[in-house]
Amino acid sequence: MSESRKINVTVWHEYVHEKRNEKVREIYPKGIHGAIADFLSQNPDMNVRTATLEERQHGLTQSVLDSTDVLIWWGHTAHEKVKDDVVQRVYDRVLDGMGLIALHSAHYSKIFKKLMGTTCSLKWREVAEKERIWVVEPGHPIAEGLNEYFEVPNTEMYGERFDIPAPDQLVFISWFEGGEVFRSGCCYNRGKGKVFYFRPGHETFPIYYQSEVQKVITNAVRWAAPTVNSPAIKFGHVQPLEVIPEKQV
Amino acid sequence: MSESRKINVTVWHEYVHEKRNEKVREIYPKGIHGAIADFLSQNPDMNVRTATLEERQHGLTQSVLDSTDVLIWWGHTAHEKVKDDVVQRVYDRVLDGMGLIALHSAHYSKIFKKLMGTTCSLKWREVAEKERIWVVEPGHPIAEGLNEYFEVPNTEMYGERFDIPAPDQLVFISWFEGGEVFRSGCCYNRGKGKVFYFRPGHETFPIYYQSEVQKVITNAVRWAAPTVNSPAIKFGHVQPLEVIPEKQV
Amino acid sequence: MSESRKINVTVWHEYVHEKRNEKVREIYPKGIHGAIADFLSQNPDMNVRTATLEERQHGLTQSVLDSTDVLIWWGHTAHEKVKDDVVQRVYDRVLDGMGLIALHSAHYSKIFKKLMGTTCSLKWREVAEKERIWVVEPGHPIAEGLNEYFEVPNTEMYGERFDIPAPDQLVFISWFEGGEVFRSGCCYNRGKGKVFYFRPGHETFPIYYQSEVQKVITNAVRWAAPTVNSPAIKFGHVQPLEVIPEKQV
Amino acid sequence: MSESRKINVTVWHEYVHEKRNEKVREIYPKGIHGAIADFLSQNPDMNVRTATLEERQHGLTQSVLDSTDVLIWWGHTAHEKVKDDVVQRVYDRVLDGMGLIALHSAHYSKIFKKLMGTTCSLKWREVAEKERIWVVEPGHPIAEGLNEYFEVPNTEMYGERFDIPAPDQLVFISWFEGGEVFRSGCCYNRGKGKVFYFRPGHETFPIYYQSEVQKVITNAVRWAAPTVNSPAIKFGHVQPLEVIPEKQV
Repeated sequence: MSESRKINVTVWHEYVHEKRNEKVREIYPKGIHGAIADFLSQNPDMNVRTATLEERQHGLTQSVLDSTDVLIWWGHTAHEKVKDDVVQRVYDRVLDGMGLIALHSAHYSKIFKKLMGTTCSLKWREVAEKERIWVVEPGHPIAEGLNEYFEVPNTEMYGERFDIPAPDQLVFISWFEGGEVFRSGCCYNRGKGKVFYFRPGHETFPIYYQSEVQKVITNAVRWAAPTVNSPAIKFGHVQPLEVIPEKQV
Repeated sequence: MSESRKINVTVWHEYVHEKRNEKVREIYPKGIHGAIADFLSQNPDMNVRTATLEERQHGLTQSVLDSTDVLIWWGHTAHEKVKDDVVQRVYDRVLDGMGLIALHSAHYSKIFKKLMGTTCSLKWREVAEKERIWVVEPGHPIAEGLNEYFEVPNTEMYGERFDIPAPDQLVFISWFEGGEVFRSGCCYNRGKGKVFYFRPGHETFPIYYQSEVQKVITNAVRWAAPTVNSPAIKFGHVQPLEVIPEKQV
Repeated sequence: MSESRKINVTVWHEYVHEKRNEKVREIYPKGIHGAIADFLSQNPDMNVRTATLEERQHGLTQSVLDSTDVLIWWGHTAHEKVKDDVVQRVYDRVLDGMGLIALHSAHYSKIFKKLMGTTCSLKWREVAEKERIWVVEPGHPIAEGLNEYFEVPNTEMYGERFDIPAPDQLVFISWFEGGEVFRSGCCYNRGKGKVFYFRPGHETFPIYYQSEVQKVITNAVRWAAPTVNSPAIKFGHVQPLEVIPEKQV
Repeated sequence: MSESRKINVTVWHEYVHEKRNEKVREIYPKGIHGAIADFLSQNPDMNVRTATLEERQHGLTQSVLDSTDVLIWWGHTAHEKVKDDVVQRVYDRVLDGMGLIALHSAHYSKIFKKLMGTTCSLKWREVAEKERIWVVEPGHPIAEGLNEYFEVPNTEMYGERFDIPAPDQLVFISWFEGGEVFRSGCCYNRGKGKVFYFRPGHETFPIYYQSEVQKVITNAVRWAAPTVNSPAIKFGHVQPLEVIPEKQV
């Protein structure tokens, strides 16, 4: 990648909890999208903007998506309110190369389920328990700058069985105080696009202010950025590249 | 598996070409589904029935699916005529453990695309060229009884890029006379179900009468049969398995 | 597989701890190999024998290996005493199709490390803590008959980072009381052979008498059994299969 | 990666054919290592040096390896002359994070086989036939800047079955004029290191002067460069991270 080229990041958030729930608003006064955009913006190699559900076309017009290298997705309570044509547009852009980072409850978003081909169901529990996130693939670029584990002191638990296809690369596994485990950092290739699922990040905990979580998301943006100048693929009917003798079938 | 338990196979076919096109009808007088059911029925460990598009609910009622261990799918010209609610029912059954074998042009069926999460697009050409199918994973049960390659003398070509997720196991790669290659035998796990895509099998060639092709499909049925007595999974809210001290968040 | 064909299983054990340590001998009076052979022998589809380090060629002559479908390996304190030529012979047989099940401390055996191509290092601790083993791939045949998790009440802990190649299929992840996680059920294909690593099983705990552990090992034997009649592969110099025009290079 | 940090590349070559065979020397007057170093050196983000078999410790002292980010390996006729202690040193560095790019006949090098855990055998034939290399993973960084396929007009053929573990990512598949296929671009993670096998490059053809081949190797160097500041892993005995009640076993 040219050193002067920046990664265009769009942080999408349903932005519902913050408006309804004072506790969430106190933790994320600018919304979760605002908190994520704030720390990503400090990277000189990134241009960051946000989009939310209530905007026209949820802020994800063709023009926004065409100029997005990596889309970050946070949704929880309003998955069903995301319009199918917008989901299709995002999907097409991922297959065309745009990176997608699905955070926490985005496991149940329409776009993530559509890309996975499975239910993406899991176990959950909300008792503010401790999570310890272990790096199982320490050479992976998404683990850069971490220790071999980090802890989230209070979180919502997500537990296995997580009904996803086996990840192309599994980077993190979580340990939970209450007795469960979870594949918390999962890389996928879909079409030309890279998809990363990252578990931490509930709306009632200040998880997106934690330095390790910010580091992972920052690393993931760089990992998921599209390959510039990837091969143009021709689908459909093609002529032979070699001479084929005429057949008498 | 108990030795006395048989695998219940349902062979689904849109069954359109045979009715419209005399040449196809001559090759497959009982339909492609009939030809496949015929050779599978010779296996004492299989119970085989068929279902087609024109039947009520395309022959894929809940009761048929509930009593199907492995569903074989062949469609080409009528993918869009398959009703979405039937696709959803098949999808749910695959995730619940039913095996699915998608043949040739079924790469573009609604059910296969839904399970893959990608476009499943490819290159194609119909000049009756030769295909040589190489076994790249000779220890895989789907390769049992084959030589290290086999040839289909006249076939429709499918060429890469095949827009699928990287297979969980890649068993076959095809060489084509016209200069292309193709990942022709692809295994996936989706939910509790096993999915196998097998490329050969165009309606205008007698490919399903070829012994190697029959062997592969027979092997694939055994491979894709559900694990009997698989773990029951609880999704959703759960109580902790360990004592969690009360938190002051 | 023909219904009448049985799987020939050889259970290999260094058989050192039991002779030195009375506590181990009390738990495993017939040796760990004896305990494993006992429960496997109850399966009508298996012929089971044992072999140990002190036997001539460690009991693993060419003739024993040639008549072994699945080899189970347990070693801990005497890895370095296993002769390299025996290791090479086992390795050659695995690549030729024999299944290998490496149990617990066999992660550090010469044969497992040679097949993995990595150090297979890990964390460990021996304080009799609880392990909860979660099924993450419930459709896999090795999970047949289990619940979604099972517990080993007192065990030696093994923790991540486990320095292995990413498994071809990951079936189990362990949760430990002391705060670690571990990829506890790992499937690999190497050559024509299938390899399964299964974590539980320390010599000072009666883990091999636990029904779930016995179930997993039993399932793994069936999964790892060779594909009968797999394709014969020709390596080395070959003639072209197609006519190549003479070249003027 | 900091923009000012360069990737340190060492190109290793047995450098035997060029000295013995005039035809090879004509094609590669500076040796294959020289040809590769020449085009890589044109990248401002790379520092390139070479090492050969005949140098002390084959030019791969601990100090050279410690200052190498990516090692490129070419050997063919002298694999057995590479000393085991040097192989071990290279192996240790790969697991510690150094990238390794194995070219063409390096499939049979000691280091590649040791990292794979398999024989790495294949079919071969030397009749100057045509190879067409198809990109099957167009979003992968190693495919950057290519078309959807490229051709090597005259090459030695390598054909499947290639006895390797299934690649973590498969980027290229080759079509050969004589009728074979081959997995020609294979990515692996081993320890913290990234390994890429790339098929093209026989000593009697000017393949390393071909722009697409140079592009692939250049891309692979960037892909295989170590993650700077990867997590430090502690192996061996560890204390619990959580309080474990004392056990009465």
